[in-house]
Amino acid sequence: MTTEPETPPRRTYSYLGPAGTFTEAALAQVPEARGHTWRPVRNVGEALADVVEGRSDAAMIAIENSIDGGVSTAQDALATMPGLRIVGEYLVPVDFVLVARPGTKLEDVSLVAAHPVAYAQCLRWLTENLPAHAHLPAASNVASAVGLLDGTSDADAAISPPGILEHHELELLAEKIGDNPEAVTRFVLVARTTAPPAPTGADKTSLIAELPEDHPGALLEMLEQFATRGINLSLLASRPIGDALGRYRFVIDADGHIEDERMADALLGLRRFSPKVIFLGSYPRADRAIVRYPERYSDDVFVEARDWLRALVSGEPEV
Amino acid sequence: MTTEPETPPRRTYSYLGPAGTFTEAALAQVPEARGHTWRPVRNVGEALADVVEGRSDAAMIAIENSIDGGVSTAQDALATMPGLRIVGEYLVPVDFVLVARPGTKLEDVSLVAAHPVAYAQCLRWLTENLPAHAHLPAASNVASAVGLLDGTSDADAAISPPGILEHHELELLAEKIGDNPEAVTRFVLVARTTAPPAPTGADKTSLIAELPEDHPGALLEMLEQFATRGINLSLLASRPIGDALGRYRFVIDADGHIEDERMADALLGLRRFSPKVIFLGSYPRADRAIVRYPERYSDDVFVEARDWLRALVSGEPEV
Amino acid sequence: MTTEPETPPRRTYSYLGPAGTFTEAALAQVPEARGHTWRPVRNVGEALADVVEGRSDAAMIAIENSIDGGVSTAQDALATMPGLRIVGEYLVPVDFVLVARPGTKLEDVSLVAAHPVAYAQCLRWLTENLPAHAHLPAASNVASAVGLLDGTSDADAAISPPGILEHHELELLAEKIGDNPEAVTRFVLVARTTAPPAPTGADKTSLIAELPEDHPGALLEMLEQFATRGINLSLLASRPIGDALGRYRFVIDADGHIEDERMADALLGLRRFSPKVIFLGSYPRADRAIVRYPERYSDDVFVEARDWLRALVSGEPEV
Amino acid sequence: MTTEPETPPRRTYSYLGPAGTFTEAALAQVPEARGHTWRPVRNVGEALADVVEGRSDAAMIAIENSIDGGVSTAQDALATMPGLRIVGEYLVPVDFVLVARPGTKLEDVSLVAAHPVAYAQCLRWLTENLPAHAHLPAASNVASAVGLLDGTSDADAAISPPGILEHHELELLAEKIGDNPEAVTRFVLVARTTAPPAPTGADKTSLIAELPEDHPGALLEMLEQFATRGINLSLLASRPIGDALGRYRFVIDADGHIEDERMADALLGLRRFSPKVIFLGSYPRADRAIVRYPERYSDDVFVEARDWLRALVSGEPEV
Repeated sequence: MTTEPETPPRRTYSYLGPAGTFTEAALAQVPEARGHTWRPVRNVGEALADVVEGRSDAAMIAIENSIDGGVSTAQDALATMPGLRIVGEYLVPVDFVLVARPGTKLEDVSLVAAHPVAYAQCLRWLTENLPAHAHLPAASNVASAVGLLDGTSDADAAISPPGILEHHELELLAEKIGDNPEAVTRFVLVARTTAPPAPTGADKTSLIAELPEDHPGALLEMLEQFATRGINLSLLASRPIGDALGRYRFVIDADGHIEDERMADALLGLRRFSPKVIFLGSYPRADRAIVRYPERYSDDVFVEARDWLRALVSGEPEV
Repeated sequence: MTTEPETPPRRTYSYLGPAGTFTEAALAQVPEARGHTWRPVRNVGEALADVVEGRSDAAMIAIENSIDGGVSTAQDALATMPGLRIVGEYLVPVDFVLVARPGTKLEDVSLVAAHPVAYAQCLRWLTENLPAHAHLPAASNVASAVGLLDGTSDADAAISPPGILEHHELELLAEKIGDNPEAVTRFVLVARTTAPPAPTGADKTSLIAELPEDHPGALLEMLEQFATRGINLSLLASRPIGDALGRYRFVIDADGHIEDERMADALLGLRRFSPKVIFLGSYPRADRAIVRYPERYSDDVFVEARDWLRALVSGEPEV
Repeated sequence: MTTEPETPPRRTYSYLGPAGTFTEAALAQVPEARGHTWRPVRNVGEALADVVEGRSDAAMIAIENSIDGGVSTAQDALATMPGLRIVGEYLVPVDFVLVARPGTKLEDVSLVAAHPVAYAQCLRWLTENLPAHAHLPAASNVASAVGLLDGTSDADAAISPPGILEHHELELLAEKIGDNPEAVTRFVLVARTTAPPAPTGADKTSLIAELPEDHPGALLEMLEQFATRGINLSLLASRPIGDALGRYRFVIDADGHIEDERMADALLGLRRFSPKVIFLGSYPRADRAIVRYPERYSDDVFVEARDWLRALVSGEPEV
Repeated sequence: MTTEPETPPRRTYSYLGPAGTFTEAALAQVPEARGHTWRPVRNVGEALADVVEGRSDAAMIAIENSIDGGVSTAQDALATMPGLRIVGEYLVPVDFVLVARPGTKLEDVSLVAAHPVAYAQCLRWLTENLPAHAHLPAASNVASAVGLLDGTSDADAAISPPGILEHHELELLAEKIGDNPEAVTRFVLVARTTAPPAPTGADKTSLIAELPEDHPGALLEMLEQFATRGINLSLLASRPIGDALGRYRFVIDADGHIEDERMADALLGLRRFSPKVIFLGSYPRADRAIVRYPERYSDDVFVEARDWLRALVSGEPEV
């Protein structure tokens, strides 16, 4: 009698669907996700709820766009849903195509379906190439492109990510129609609370923090927790807490890993200062850029200072 | 022969139309605008272009929402269009109604048209009262409500501001369907560059500033320009400059008026520090709350110090 | 046969002699010193060398005067002699008498012996009461008073601490001749390096620190190590390092004990920042005033933050 | 008939005498003082009183020593005598000789007269070369050297500045007996309040300032007035105000001139912050070292910012 080889557990990844979205392109960058279940969902709240409630092992969500800034729904969801942790970061170029039903020509297009953000990012191209077009706002670019085929959309063409062409028989009317060729969207992979992945030297720590009270200098004091440990912030965004105008929480990306001494010390200072800190995770940066910092904030300086303090308290001679 | 009385010049105000929007409700709060021309436009860019190019004398635009945060398109437009100045601030409660064609009953509604932001703000009410509804995304709440009447919309009902009922014969299905009764939107009235209105003691100064370089502590140093003069910030929002991830400009509302000594001094410091500062204006706060500050930052302290310095340089005895 | 009771070891205390000095008055405040050997020495360097080289168990030295400021020879000696630790602090009022050979009257006095510092502190009284006097500078007040009796001094009278009268048969010509009745001198008891006495809630920590380099803001950054942990400094004095004009070390007294969490954290920060820190000791304040600090810097806030950090790193749910 | 040439008014300079002191060596560095009256006095208080009361036009006083630090009597006198201003700075090497009555040999010396500070600075040489000597404390080195000749001193030799040999027939027993060949004393020339000499680019500004209250961070805030304008401090010394332990005023030397924009701005900030600021003067540095500062604090940056602010207030287009 032979034993069957053990089947590795199948994992599930939620992402903003349908197939062909930029989010799917981000998920395609995750080696561990290959060959596992990819679960398309309709919005970021659904994606994160899948993780919290155990339907998925992780969710890929857009968190920042180089042109539009922070994705506020994602930031707000991370601020209010406990039990989550970012475990990876991925960058996807924002690269749009114009698609239509097979046989359509560019000169036939008068009504263009697009999500308002995508529409705004292609407006220069559209104004030059389709000066007389009208815009049909859509909740999802990919869904409206699919709608061209199944008859649920009245539009003549749709703006879409290039990935759509791998999934549907659409006519490609134009490529690279985005106004900014450098545009990029930043995605994060979110899992349930877990120990952070090991430091790589090229890490990022994501946080959300509230200020103790609305007085001149509170934000300043919060930022000093990082500056006085030589830590650079790559993102600082304010989001309304929602209870009153002028009350904000801050979304922070800091260079370094929670297991770096200077970051651990900064987090301690932040925790002591702030009435509410959410640690979203320490994880490798998408760009793999090694974090630079002044020598005086290196791990061994922290370790040496602790040894020195210990000797002082015990009455040993100073080192 | 009699001379006719001189007719005062007629002024034009641009606002996000059509009639019935929250922006129109903000414009209705401006006494000087009564009896003048109100020009509805389709977006904030158009409204500001009207002012810059002389078609309008001023434009009313939404700048911040207590739930969604800064209106990024408005912030970005103010950051990139020169020649504008904020001259007033107005608050409008975010108060939604559900409207339909005459004769419609709530139980008949299955497809609800709404701008995605408005939809999100009414989601709890909709889930409880119309659990089986579907959402038809719209570019404008008021336009989709009007579309119910002229046959251009397939929806059964639309979410709209209450002002819509003053302009159109729609059936009111439900009032106050917003999830947060405290929600409020902040609007500003924008004119061409002009001298700021006189200080009232309850003023606000709006600015946009860039940081000199991406090093630990640059933002901190910018904020110190305000904190070291006893100036509180009621808004600090980051917006991507758009050229690369991690490069931001900051949108700032500071308590006080450019003619307050401490604010003038802070602006000088900010100008010396920042590679780019845009002064958007000093104007009375919508809430008319008197600005409080430590006595040591009062105007006479600044004036006295200047007198002292002048005496030192001229060799007069110290005062 | 009876066993003799064990004799406790006899301890030796060095102090600036001879008997009758303010330093002796400070040593008289030390309960543990009663009944032990008091060793008079000629200067602070000798007193500290006694301790370092084992001739004494501790030395009492003057460290600060409310009128003259820091005693620079004491500060410099502590900065350069390793192996010492301050274990207690004592205050002695600066209260001078004018003494002479028995039988002398005030009107007989024309030449007054005094250490220059004491002379300066009594100058107003001398000008009013002995307008025609001349000053004979002395290296020690008590020695010159004694010199009146043994014939080694040509002076008619000497300025001295009141304690002189307990040791020598001198004529008291006048009491309380110091110009400032509030004047006080601060003394410290110095032992070999040992564990600090236990915290009492009314403690002081003495330090000497150098700055990393001579740039704008280095001192500021050093002071922030304390301010950002809610620690008040009761003394900050600069002393030349001696190698070049403009190079200083700083003598610091900070409120609190090295075993207070906020002080330990500040010392760690100081050690990481400064090229050279000398911890002189944590010990009870002479005035027994309880140290006040903002609640946010209390020990439990530090402990809680460490627990929080530990949970984050291990992947436990946030507390 | 011829008119006589007009005689220029004769000026008087007070200095710590008698002839031969280091202070006289400092005064000899002042070109304007040559050929005018040099008035020896016994102490710094007398020198400054001469100026205040009009007996002298200026006084040369020692203000800092590279080994002993600030001359506290001079600092305290400047802090409490109004109507004075520093107009120049001079450096004199601290270079001691050992002198005696003619015919004396080094091996004859057993009692050495010296001011305690000078004695301390030669202690190593004395210990090596005259191991059995005794010390006779003196109020003035030069006076005790002179006393060797006129019979008022019992000493065998005296420590003195080399200048003594130009004025008196003394035997030179040894040269350069100071322990630190780099030692230097800094002197300042003090006049009545007058306009500062014109900026040279190599200037220094001297100040005395008190802190507003004894709270954590007050000193920090004072130092920020300089650091935030790119101004380096070459001297920061604390001196007790004298009313209670722990209450200090600060003696400050800052790089730059009151007519430099950044310094003027710092002085304004300091005046607004501090309950008491004494401006002691802006004057050329003795070492003529050009003051370096970041380009962002140059005069034209300040002027440009003021022009910008003026345009904003008047409603002109932004520059």
